[in-house]
Amino acid sequence: MPSTNLSFPDRQAHRAWLATQGALPAGFRVGVTRFEFLPKEAPKPAKMTITLIALDRPTADFAAMFTNNAFPGAPIIVGRQRLQAPALGAIVVNNKISNVCAPGGVAASERLCAESARLLGLAPTEILPSSTGVIGWTLPVDAMLAALPQAAQALAGGSILPAAEGIVTTDLYPKIRRASVGAGSIVGIAKGAGMIEPNLATMLVYLLTDLAVPRAELRAMLTRVMEGSFNSISVDSDTSTSDTVALVSSSRVPCPDLKAFEQALQTVCRDLAEDVVRNGEGVRHVIRVKVSQAATPALARALGKSIVNAPLFKCAVAGNDPNVGRLVQAIGKHVGAQAPGTDLSKLRARMGGVEIFAQGVFQLNPEKESALTAHLRGAELYASAPPKDGVFTAPIDYPPHERCVEIEIDVGNGAASATVMGGDLTHEYVSENADYRS
Amino acid sequence: MPSTNLSFPDRQAHRAWLATQGALPAGFRVGVTRFEFLPKEAPKPAKMTITLIALDRPTADFAAMFTNNAFPGAPIIVGRQRLQAPALGAIVVNNKISNVCAPGGVAASERLCAESARLLGLAPTEILPSSTGVIGWTLPVDAMLAALPQAAQALAGGSILPAAEGIVTTDLYPKIRRASVGAGSIVGIAKGAGMIEPNLATMLVYLLTDLAVPRAELRAMLTRVMEGSFNSISVDSDTSTSDTVALVSSSRVPCPDLKAFEQALQTVCRDLAEDVVRNGEGVRHVIRVKVSQAATPALARALGKSIVNAPLFKCAVAGNDPNVGRLVQAIGKHVGAQAPGTDLSKLRARMGGVEIFAQGVFQLNPEKESALTAHLRGAELYASAPPKDGVFTAPIDYPPHERCVEIEIDVGNGAASATVMGGDLTHEYVSENADYRS
Repeated sequence: MPSTNLSFPDRQAHRAWLATQGALPAGFRVGVTRFEFLPKEAPKPAKMTITLIALDRPTADFAAMFTNNAFPGAPIIVGRQRLQAPALGAIVVNNKISNVCAPGGVAASERLCAESARLLGLAPTEILPSSTGVIGWTLPVDAMLAALPQAAQALAGGSILPAAEGIVTTDLYPKIRRASVGAGSIVGIAKGAGMIEPNLATMLVYLLTDLAVPRAELRAMLTRVMEGSFNSISVDSDTSTSDTVALVSSSRVPCPDLKAFEQALQTVCRDLAEDVVRNGEGVRHVIRVKVSQAATPALARALGKSIVNAPLFKCAVAGNDPNVGRLVQAIGKHVGAQAPGTDLSKLRARMGGVEIFAQGVFQLNPEKESALTAHLRGAELYASAPPKDGVFTAPIDYPPHERCVEIEIDVGNGAASATVMGGDLTHEYVSENADYRS
Repeated sequence: MPSTNLSFPDRQAHRAWLATQGALPAGFRVGVTRFEFLPKEAPKPAKMTITLIALDRPTADFAAMFTNNAFPGAPIIVGRQRLQAPALGAIVVNNKISNVCAPGGVAASERLCAESARLLGLAPTEILPSSTGVIGWTLPVDAMLAALPQAAQALAGGSILPAAEGIVTTDLYPKIRRASVGAGSIVGIAKGAGMIEPNLATMLVYLLTDLAVPRAELRAMLTRVMEGSFNSISVDSDTSTSDTVALVSSSRVPCPDLKAFEQALQTVCRDLAEDVVRNGEGVRHVIRVKVSQAATPALARALGKSIVNAPLFKCAVAGNDPNVGRLVQAIGKHVGAQAPGTDLSKLRARMGGVEIFAQGVFQLNPEKESALTAHLRGAELYASAPPKDGVFTAPIDYPPHERCVEIEIDVGNGAASATVMGGDLTHEYVSENADYRS
């Protein structure tokens, strides 16, 4: 990952590229509406967007995976039931409130499904609901039911961009990736941007295809591609109660090659996963850790996660400070606590291609420090400037490049490998999350 | 915890209290020296403090516990050997560089021990070395050997305060706690302030007593009190490569009651552990989580740790934002990933005494939100002000009070309990750690 090496000078250039990515596969339409409401739990009005993703006719060929957080949101509870339904006709998504452990939450989700079904001429069990946003608040169901007809009236083919924009919360820009197989395509959209260390899926991801792939194959493929994509990223080590990845086929185009389809699906998922990290809350550097020669794939991924989740190392990266001691600390923390007895005597570590650790000791000198600092600066997504009011905001609404802080760890006693991606820990993350609801 | 309910109006009042706490037990002296040097790996000079803690005569009665990080520092490797030695005569501590995985690190520690022993008329195996600071850099051994005589000449009884000040790095103030048993006492000092989620011990803690307790008893007691003190705190979930807790008896005073001694030891350790959190890097709120009615003590502690380590919840606390959805997320994250199948249907949660979750749903309303916000504000240690240069600094050098953000979790299906303490995630933490080495 990624499959691309893009760079954008500004938002307009990024938008133009998104437009080329966003052509909807045959058989799908999207519609969006936005309205204001007064949350029951808060003193001032808020805005919500409802996004409909509808098939021209219901399909049996769909797959979905959900969070493994033990307090799943009501839409997750309903969604798990939908996997047993014979067909899917539409997805209804709202942002702002995630409908998690709210009184009457499941009934609220079902009411939204019933009204969406009525508007679209479908059965309520043919609607998959999704909600994202504040945990604990209750959905303004009446206001949502009143707004739904506008979303239905807005339904249109052509571009998925309105849906990619409709589902976001704290994201700085919409995320779309596509791949072609024969005469058909897979188009995916994702929202981040915080509470991201998925364990079976991530936040909200919708993958639409016109290629005809049977339900059983879709579900098996989605499970397989998950490990190397959404299960290999972490923005902040937190696991959302709403994580959902749905894969839906309109079956309009014959699939010439199932293996090519799975490969394309993997590419789209990996690219979207990286997009989620790159636009993670406050992320100023994307950190890519390639772990090799580990005893097991699980250990390889766990070591990568321990590095990208170590607050002190993340802060050092934010400051362009090659404090590689904190990186080695993170490896030792995981092994000491979770994998004691692992032989680390042959471990080698590189950052930006520079060897920093081998044969049990650091391999550092002032020239290497300069090279590492330059590598960190080169991977910066934006310059952080002290704001007058103390609230740090990322000054970009597009991804300027796809460079990463590149870390390689050769454990030296096995054949397993994994690549994990994460972000740094910045003032922008703290500002976003110490002030998110106000 | 804590055993006290202190509040201080300013640094002078805190210093006066430290002076009352810091009377050295009989049989100990401390000496400190400070000097400037040029690190091999960095372009500009740095300052280091060397602290000696010496017994009037070597003792067989000492205990020590060390980090379980799989990349332990050289002093940890040497210290583990010292546990086998017949006697301990002194401890030599330096800050600024932690001597972890540095080329020749063990030899460097042994040279410091040999010179300390020569100056004090002891055997090199009677010296316990400790180092804390940057990981990866090499100790300036020649400069340290040149400075050691000044520390030895400065050795004096009376107060432990010079040592409590000498061992700090990013700490805002020294930490001392004491307890009396019969005619003797236990006096402990600790340094934090980052890379703190100890797994067998914490950063650097030295516990001195004049009470005569045999080596085997000391070691068993230290192991027992660790779980409820230093193993129950986390500032940032990172595990230092240098964590050390040493307990040394000069055996000058008969111990009237071993149980009373262990109780006093526990009190000193718990209070010091809380002090380490309260003075954790950037900490503006101390969070205390009491978990009860859990299936096992390990699960109770793990749930508490998951809450105090959840970045989004920590940010919400920093912002005085009662975003309790993020708290429940943290519980569900741990259970989903580590303890699936745990029945959470009877879980109840309170913050500041206000019920926020019961019977599977949030119990919120605007009045409760106001009460929760007031509770958060009341636990704030200082006001955070946007600095002109963007570098946030905690504007205190003393602990103004001992209040906490109080969280209670009744899991509702067991008899085990645990109390865990942690801190919030603030701009001051990011400033401290994105700019620490420069």
